[in-house]
Amino acid sequence: MHSIYLAGPEVFHAEAFALGRAKQALCGAVGYVGLYPLDGTIDTDVAEPRDLARAIYRSNIAMIRTADAVIANLTPFRGPGADAGTVFEVGFALALGKTVLGYRNTVGLYADRVRDWNGTEFQRDADGRPLDRDGLLVEDFGFGDNLMIDAAVTVFEHDAAPAARLTDLSGFTACLKRLQAILPP
Amino acid sequence: MHSIYLAGPEVFHAEAFALGRAKQALCGAVGYVGLYPLDGTIDTDVAEPRDLARAIYRSNIAMIRTADAVIANLTPFRGPGADAGTVFEVGFALALGKTVLGYRNTVGLYADRVRDWNGTEFQRDADGRPLDRDGLLVEDFGFGDNLMIDAAVTVFEHDAAPAARLTDLSGFTACLKRLQAILPP
Repeated sequence: MHSIYLAGPEVFHAEAFALGRAKQALCGAVGYVGLYPLDGTIDTDVAEPRDLARAIYRSNIAMIRTADAVIANLTPFRGPGADAGTVFEVGFALALGKTVLGYRNTVGLYADRVRDWNGTEFQRDADGRPLDRDGLLVEDFGFGDNLMIDAAVTVFEHDAAPAARLTDLSGFTACLKRLQAILPP
Repeated sequence: MHSIYLAGPEVFHAEAFALGRAKQALCGAVGYVGLYPLDGTIDTDVAEPRDLARAIYRSNIAMIRTADAVIANLTPFRGPGADAGTVFEVGFALALGKTVLGYRNTVGLYADRVRDWNGTEFQRDADGRPLDRDGLLVEDFGFGDNLMIDAAVTVFEHDAAPAARLTDLSGFTACLKRLQAILPP
């Protein structure tokens, strides 16, 4: 049975375990096994926090290596773009040749989200390109995030209610549906 | 001659080309070839911005595949953590078995940087763990960024002057020195 690594920042949510179970139920209903990061085998008998973090890292990486595919929650997290841990995992999985699909529980352009973060309209360079408050170029390719993410992965976007921004599963369901055509269960 | 992919958000800097040349000069001085993203062969004869972004993506990925190692500028970018494109590339390169080293032109803990972003002190959950303004757990393992980055990569930290936050090369130089022991030029 094909397995799917369930990447995303909902591991930081108060209902992290329940959210994982919900995703796993959706996977199971269509014939996949969902691998949730919090289910990893982690050696917690370690001396200090950094060693625990390294054990979590190894567990996540082992699950990605095992998985046939990754579905990533790319909803913006503490800033204009996706969660760094999730982005790392997407890159890692793609390099291994895994099928990776993503969803983003908001619509709109990365550049517009950077403008919100910026607080004011952008400055422009001599070529008319947008610059943020630190004078750094704002990429504006019509994508919802950094091009290394959105040029690499098909991202299903959905305008979830703010309270369900991290937890809405309609984008996840769309990924599952697409995956069935790519990697039949 | 070993080659090093020069990952980092300085590609968004006004002096992006000069910064790349400076890194390449440092690489050359110790016997490496530095591969800078902006030097990639990109098909610019495309119809729309997303296709240009995809061409840039393919060019970056091709350079990473060619490279023997990656040195990544992990300095926080538009938020508490590293640039998403750089993080993606670090994950991708590690999955290919490349040597990856990183630097961060600031010191301090990720959790403290999230507190600055948060604007107020953290709330606590029933177990006393820190929660951000969205009620999301703040990881606090003693690292300078998300554990998927700092558990995976040796990161050289340096407290650069604010004006040189993105461009200071002392951390890069430290990476080069370390690399010479791992992958002799």
